Amino acid sequence: MSHPHPELGSPPALPEGGLRIVPLGGLGEIGRNMTVFEFGGRLLIVDCGVLFPESEQPGVDLILPDFDYIRDRLDDIEGIVLTHGHEDHIGGVPYLLRERPDIPLIGSRLTLALLEAKLTEHRLKPTTVQVREGETRSFGPFSCEFLAVNHSIPDALAVAIRTAAGLVLATGDFKMDQLPLDGRLTDLGGFARLGAEGIDLLLSDSTNAEVPGFVTSERDIGIVLSDVLRIAQKRAIVACFASHVHRVQQVLDAAHESGRKVCFVGRSMVRNMGVARDLGYLRVPAGILIDQKEMDDLPGEEIVLVCTGSQGEPMSALSRMANRDHQIRIEQGDTVILASSLIPGNENAVNRVINGLTRWGARVVHKGNALVHVSGHAPAGELLYVLNMTRPGNFMPIHGEWRHLSAHARLAALTGVPDENIVIAEDGVVVDLVDGQAKIVGAVRAGYVYVDGLSVGEITETSLKDRRILGDEGFVSVVVVIDSSSGKVLGGPEIHARGAGIDSFEAVIPRLDEVLESAAADGINDVHQLRQLVRRTAGRWVNESFGRRPMIIPVIVEV
Amino acid sequence: MSHPHPELGSPPALPEGGLRIVPLGGLGEIGRNMTVFEFGGRLLIVDCGVLFPESEQPGVDLILPDFDYIRDRLDDIEGIVLTHGHEDHIGGVPYLLRERPDIPLIGSRLTLALLEAKLTEHRLKPTTVQVREGETRSFGPFSCEFLAVNHSIPDALAVAIRTAAGLVLATGDFKMDQLPLDGRLTDLGGFARLGAEGIDLLLSDSTNAEVPGFVTSERDIGIVLSDVLRIAQKRAIVACFASHVHRVQQVLDAAHESGRKVCFVGRSMVRNMGVARDLGYLRVPAGILIDQKEMDDLPGEEIVLVCTGSQGEPMSALSRMANRDHQIRIEQGDTVILASSLIPGNENAVNRVINGLTRWGARVVHKGNALVHVSGHAPAGELLYVLNMTRPGNFMPIHGEWRHLSAHARLAALTGVPDENIVIAEDGVVVDLVDGQAKIVGAVRAGYVYVDGLSVGEITETSLKDRRILGDEGFVSVVVVIDSSSGKVLGGPEIHARGAGIDSFEAVIPRLDEVLESAAADGINDVHQLRQLVRRTAGRWVNESFGRRPMIIPVIVEV
Repeated sequence: MSHPHPELGSPPALPEGGLRIVPLGGLGEIGRNMTVFEFGGRLLIVDCGVLFPESEQPGVDLILPDFDYIRDRLDDIEGIVLTHGHEDHIGGVPYLLRERPDIPLIGSRLTLALLEAKLTEHRLKPTTVQVREGETRSFGPFSCEFLAVNHSIPDALAVAIRTAAGLVLATGDFKMDQLPLDGRLTDLGGFARLGAEGIDLLLSDSTNAEVPGFVTSERDIGIVLSDVLRIAQKRAIVACFASHVHRVQQVLDAAHESGRKVCFVGRSMVRNMGVARDLGYLRVPAGILIDQKEMDDLPGEEIVLVCTGSQGEPMSALSRMANRDHQIRIEQGDTVILASSLIPGNENAVNRVINGLTRWGARVVHKGNALVHVSGHAPAGELLYVLNMTRPGNFMPIHGEWRHLSAHARLAALTGVPDENIVIAEDGVVVDLVDGQAKIVGAVRAGYVYVDGLSVGEITETSLKDRRILGDEGFVSVVVVIDSSSGKVLGGPEIHARGAGIDSFEAVIPRLDEVLESAAADGINDVHQLRQLVRRTAGRWVNESFGRRPMIIPVIVEV
Repeated sequence: MSHPHPELGSPPALPEGGLRIVPLGGLGEIGRNMTVFEFGGRLLIVDCGVLFPESEQPGVDLILPDFDYIRDRLDDIEGIVLTHGHEDHIGGVPYLLRERPDIPLIGSRLTLALLEAKLTEHRLKPTTVQVREGETRSFGPFSCEFLAVNHSIPDALAVAIRTAAGLVLATGDFKMDQLPLDGRLTDLGGFARLGAEGIDLLLSDSTNAEVPGFVTSERDIGIVLSDVLRIAQKRAIVACFASHVHRVQQVLDAAHESGRKVCFVGRSMVRNMGVARDLGYLRVPAGILIDQKEMDDLPGEEIVLVCTGSQGEPMSALSRMANRDHQIRIEQGDTVILASSLIPGNENAVNRVINGLTRWGARVVHKGNALVHVSGHAPAGELLYVLNMTRPGNFMPIHGEWRHLSAHARLAALTGVPDENIVIAEDGVVVDLVDGQAKIVGAVRAGYVYVDGLSVGEITETSLKDRRILGDEGFVSVVVVIDSSSGKVLGGPEIHARGAGIDSFEAVIPRLDEVLESAAADGINDVHQLRQLVRRTAGRWVNESFGRRPMIIPVIVEV
């Protein structure tokens, strides 16, 4: 198997007739999926998503792929294929369109509808190309055939890309529920047909490559939801992702069955379910929907609320209910159902919400105690089917952290893909497919680009490092005013501290005075030198007295 | 069931002949377990542990129970019973001994040995009373009978406390492995005997009350470890808690079986296993231990390393190996076994370690893909046995978050404890047992006391709030030097920012100049007013220009 070498250099020119594949996101992480395909000087992009920050990126709103690699080649882009409507696949589009607003956006009906709703909020009017499974369309030198795949959002697509360099199949995110709610199966037959034709390179979803076996059908959740709603004494509150149309469909069906009315709570839930209903992806039983005001007239046992907040997001309706900080007050007998995955990193937040809800008397049903969630990604058993049906010449695991990519590579090897034809790449690693052989040839920059407030890319690793120190230790600032010529102290030291847990600086003032006096006596009036002296003196005192290391900010003002 | 009311007042005087129970930690959280029993004006404390901080408590080293409730009554304390040697039960002792160094510490041989090793580091020489299962000892008016319990550390005890107010059984942390490695079973027969005598109040471990069923025996892990070591191509590196003597015992046995030598890595692992070996709790096969230097002379397939770091702690040997920042370099073919639980909140850190190790070619075995960990706490099935064997007059779930306490209370109700005799308390809630009836009678302060560096209790909620803001947004400080009489600006504004992601402040300087000039023109020379003006002007500019809200620190120095 080829692994990216830590010291990969810039890639050479792409040989004529070769296809270049450059993942700018999604490999080595779960999120901000974006892959650039290049052939004959033209580019096709598959997906353009965002990554959500972890605690290592404090204060950051979103993380984007680094567009630097394509910034000088925006006019070469034939289009962006969006495989489905999740944020980690479409969330970066508004930011890429800032660079060139008329890049054609290619996707299924629901995917484009969700994306357009988002772009409207960014005041962008995109150029779109609606496609559907079974269809083949050309974008410059790229002939794209679209195939249906089943995922945790309707209308997801895989894309087969044909160029003179060969046939590439990118699965997008998928699983193989054999009894999907909408009857739209992952087109394994289509994969087999392409396999028979000869797939030169397979790019396949690795998220669940470490998980043995097969997914439980989404349908099985419906039965559990019905049971829970039937025995719920009062209100039922279901929290799930605002894009999970099929999950919400099952809540609607179960509510209908148990004679309950349904109220959607929260902007994204109301917006997305409106889109899904208008396009016919969500079937809403007549008269079942009510708004928040109408709930007051109904007893709890006739109500289901559907909201977001299943990840413990502090500002969500559910977190606020748990904290008694929402107009909907949890009462003894209410049932809350967390019908979603638990994204790693959110465990503590979700735990706090469960404790809060339980404290007010709610029963909390979650994937830990009932079948109220199934994953949207194919586990190992299903990935083996795809590998065996496609028999790819080369294999490149995508959409996963290192552990997932590496597990998926092992599966490929077990199905008979030769080691030398398996490419484990990371973000920025350049893979060329030339004469039927995929190979790592270099690397380009593919670092994190942070969105924080209005700015994109202004927050750097240095800022984040400062935030981590400030967040752990706080700071102490020492201001001294000196006469610019003599270096004599005219004012201060004035000391301010926040987050350092120090109330009084009386003990350090004499030390600072002494240091500054002797500096003045030595004729030191260089601001830089004085700053060092102040930093060292204050820092040493804090460390000796408190055993802590806040950031020390010496400020010397010359007048 | 009685629930603590949010507006509980101070408790009334304890009626004569009554027993008062005040949990100062461990109820409503997992950690810093400490319960104070009062009878006839005397106090007995059970456990005195620490809680480890979450991301909500940035920069904090440890969280202690608030000793305020007992601070004026230190001389009334008859002793502290330590049920076992885990940090969340003994970690607070050094801090309590600072208040009164001669409080008798009561515990089993291993518990006291581990505690004494820790106290030596704090330069404390404690007064100890060694006890063992089957023994009854009186401490003032408290007659204590000790019973064996099985847990994830050897030599754990439950304690039955007899006073004229009745019989209380506190289980401590326990589970009921029926084939424990050391043959020391939880004394369910003893529990039954006490039950027959009549238990007035049962306090029982709630950690796993939500988990159905029974624990798998620790013994079953041994088989898996043997298999893993047998097929491991090169080195095996086992990470687990430094207190888990039985887990390490099984590693030693499996290593012995496969002809491998064992090297302990890390201070706490070396220290604890030394103690356990000296006292006969750890049986070390002759000649199996080697030190780090001796490893160089052996091929990888003859080596097992045992270290901590199973929670992804950034400074641990394991994390550093994952980052190639340790002299032990992970190589293709190495096997790493995370033989421990995953404490909620550590998921991302552990995930990073697994990705790092995988990247360098290691195979990582963890509880997600093999039976290399079993919990130390009794799940619901076992808790029901205890409830049914003890048939307590009153029941109070302990050691758990709200969700666990509430699940355990439900189990008690199912076994027939009347609702009015089930007390769900939280830290600080005062429960009196009078005439055989347990009741909540009030509450005392039981907030978090933070240890950060050398200081205890100096870091307040305000400091933590400041740290959270600084950690998310950074700060901007604006220093202005004014003439104290005229208010005229003599120097500045000088602006410093860290973590705010702002490079240049040129654009705001004219705005600040203008505001300060017009203030001087209006004769404003009040420092407080000028600070407000500067804060508002700078804050508004940052927010308008960047959509961010760093902390704004205006500093006005008068000369």
